[in-house]
Amino acid sequence: MIDEKHIKHFTSIVGDDNIYSDKAHLIAYSYDATREHFEPDAVIFPRNEDDISAILKHCNEHKIVIVPRGAGSGFTGGALPSSGGIVLAMEKHMNKILEIDMKNMVAIVQPGVINMDLQRAVEEVGLFYPPDPASQDYSTLGGNVSENAGGMRAAKYGITKDYVMATRAVLPNGDIIKAGKRTIKDVAGYNISGILIASEGTLAVLSEITLKLIPKPKMTKTAMGIFDSVSEAMEAVYKTMASGITPVAMEFLDNLTIRAVEQTYNKGLPVDAGALLVTDVDGNLEEDLDFQLAQIEKVFRENGCRTFKIAKDNAEAADIWFARRNASQSITIYGSKKLNEDVTVPRAVLPELLEKFYAIAHKYDINIPCFGHTGDGNVHTNVMVDGSDPEQVKIAYQAIEEVFQATVDLGGTLSGEHGIGLAKAPYMSMAFTEEEMNLFKSIKMAFDPNNILNPAKMGLN
Amino acid sequence: MIDEKHIKHFTSIVGDDNIYSDKAHLIAYSYDATREHFEPDAVIFPRNEDDISAILKHCNEHKIVIVPRGAGSGFTGGALPSSGGIVLAMEKHMNKILEIDMKNMVAIVQPGVINMDLQRAVEEVGLFYPPDPASQDYSTLGGNVSENAGGMRAAKYGITKDYVMATRAVLPNGDIIKAGKRTIKDVAGYNISGILIASEGTLAVLSEITLKLIPKPKMTKTAMGIFDSVSEAMEAVYKTMASGITPVAMEFLDNLTIRAVEQTYNKGLPVDAGALLVTDVDGNLEEDLDFQLAQIEKVFRENGCRTFKIAKDNAEAADIWFARRNASQSITIYGSKKLNEDVTVPRAVLPELLEKFYAIAHKYDINIPCFGHTGDGNVHTNVMVDGSDPEQVKIAYQAIEEVFQATVDLGGTLSGEHGIGLAKAPYMSMAFTEEEMNLFKSIKMAFDPNNILNPAKMGLN
Repeated sequence: MIDEKHIKHFTSIVGDDNIYSDKAHLIAYSYDATREHFEPDAVIFPRNEDDISAILKHCNEHKIVIVPRGAGSGFTGGALPSSGGIVLAMEKHMNKILEIDMKNMVAIVQPGVINMDLQRAVEEVGLFYPPDPASQDYSTLGGNVSENAGGMRAAKYGITKDYVMATRAVLPNGDIIKAGKRTIKDVAGYNISGILIASEGTLAVLSEITLKLIPKPKMTKTAMGIFDSVSEAMEAVYKTMASGITPVAMEFLDNLTIRAVEQTYNKGLPVDAGALLVTDVDGNLEEDLDFQLAQIEKVFRENGCRTFKIAKDNAEAADIWFARRNASQSITIYGSKKLNEDVTVPRAVLPELLEKFYAIAHKYDINIPCFGHTGDGNVHTNVMVDGSDPEQVKIAYQAIEEVFQATVDLGGTLSGEHGIGLAKAPYMSMAFTEEEMNLFKSIKMAFDPNNILNPAKMGLN
Repeated sequence: MIDEKHIKHFTSIVGDDNIYSDKAHLIAYSYDATREHFEPDAVIFPRNEDDISAILKHCNEHKIVIVPRGAGSGFTGGALPSSGGIVLAMEKHMNKILEIDMKNMVAIVQPGVINMDLQRAVEEVGLFYPPDPASQDYSTLGGNVSENAGGMRAAKYGITKDYVMATRAVLPNGDIIKAGKRTIKDVAGYNISGILIASEGTLAVLSEITLKLIPKPKMTKTAMGIFDSVSEAMEAVYKTMASGITPVAMEFLDNLTIRAVEQTYNKGLPVDAGALLVTDVDGNLEEDLDFQLAQIEKVFRENGCRTFKIAKDNAEAADIWFARRNASQSITIYGSKKLNEDVTVPRAVLPELLEKFYAIAHKYDINIPCFGHTGDGNVHTNVMVDGSDPEQVKIAYQAIEEVFQATVDLGGTLSGEHGIGLAKAPYMSMAFTEEEMNLFKSIKMAFDPNNILNPAKMGLN
């Protein structure tokens, strides 16, 4: 528990209205999307960068643990105060779009801005911020940067890191630094923004982010391919990309997922199909979009696509996307406990990866519905069991371990989007050597010698 | 000087043929493109990653300075052994393209591979490696990554960092690490490749690099715009990008540069023009290229372009590019001493930046011809004086200081492509606060506690 004199000091920084240690607040800030919970000792809402600096300085001097938090929508526990201490919540004050610089195509935002609020604001002026995690309606840009969030459009447009031009951040000792500029290129000094991205709030607290924007493509078209077998669909994915076409999105649903959506929503989906692929293409010219779709159809057909459908209008496009957008909820028909992973492999081994996952499901007699961002090799892998049955839960964790091992064996990563946090920390030794873990710890020490900032995450304790 | 027993130890690692300390070798490896020179105590050619590891381990234990070197083509002294010690030269053995993975569109290379050798190899199989620094015919990919090299195509395709998916590297203590994967996404662990890029060989020695490739665009077209004034041309640059068109290249030459090329080569260039803009567009469809060029012409014309010419064939395209490609040599007519900087600003302040540079030239009565990659805000700024006149050289350095100050004042960076090395180290305090420099030093310490690896670069001594 934090001493009353520290609470008084923090109150003197942010004022009465911006610090809480009543039970209701502590419970409210004990959760994230993992369903784990740990109560902090206090919740502070900094009003500005100077507040963050003063708070961190005090925490550092008194070795008080502090955990930065955006919307708490993370899937791996990055924002959970698992060692108690302070939750530093960005949602109340640090939530402003400071500037949309149309001439340089750059946005300057505070970390608590919600992703979709930025997308809307820039699209109003003809610009485009591509990273669109599934949490876009509520997750914050600070959280997106800290976890290096991906999204549906990553196949063509990349992920959050590809849009971070600069950051301002507060170091654990209270020092305020800026890293990067409103320039396309900058090779002066170490790439601090580069290491802050995906560092899960363990190295510094972001106070301002400069994001690259691009011109909004004038038009988008959507198409869907139905495949008899999932392995043919996976072949079609990487062969499409290698053929010279880069679709905006190339998403897939496997048979279990298709059946779950159909059972839940009755949309007339092909429940006998091995896989569905949903793809978007965009550009400035109708001819260009038609060229891309023709090429995609050709590669799909060569790889066992039995039906290829191009949406004629927005309504048909929304219809095609419906199954993908509702996959995550629908698969809960397979069990009350979902272990939801976001493993990512080189695209060309997707067929082999899926085969291994289904073999694991068969071995344990459980369902592992898969869907996700195949365009970038990212498979949302869901081990579903009955959460009320301890034996089933134990089996689920065994299966997940094998899912990770299969991924790593095929040159993949534990996480394409969600990060490590607490949830995947036990698996870090599968993916990293002792030498690599030692380097991570040295970097953590360089930024945070007293280990006050979001400790015990990423397996670094 | 390095003790004979250390030389013996290194010889036991790499063999007689791969270590030299004779005068000829020491002189050969004392230079880079800065024209500064510092002799090392020995030059070692590691045969593989294990050699690098054994060499670094020994250097670390005995606090022997070691400097990794690619082609020695850097402009800022990154590869110079300014504190003596070992030069670790990658050109002899560590120069192989290990794999071109067409299915995943990835190349795996050793650090000593020459940029153009990779470009040629991947284009033969229909793929494309966009980063094309002016040194592409001789600079190595290890050097490109260490300096985060840019190039002509950065406006559309980005710079080296946008293509580094993974690295293998040897830490100063000899530990071998890998960072990243052959996957588009990977958020497990700190972004080590991100911090190694542009670290100028001060944190680790690269032993293998995994580079993203993209499909080769089917066609390219070239155009040129002639402007009466340089400020109108600079307006045209950022307005083109903001209009929704992203040309591959958007290069400029100012009046002094145009006149220098014309005087040297007699090509019939418009010597009265304020600026020339040279642009390439690419894509898969003729219609798309024509659409892009029409839009560029429209914006150019709205901003004072008096002549707009589209190349009809490759010969005409080469002709348009001739002036840009020969700018650097031609401007030597203005003086035997060239202080060549690569400052970069947000595109929209380019008009103001150029105005400031010409005011500095006027103030000191010297010539500062400028050209470069305006599509990404990068201006090659050349302070030209008579190198045999000490007074002129002194003036040149005064002018350069003002060039940097003007750049930083406009939100720009000391270097867009060339790095800091030794040459720009004195100016680091203009661009970074003490807190930021302290953070750089902490990171250097985390990787290299004995400061053996390329010390005294980047102003970190």
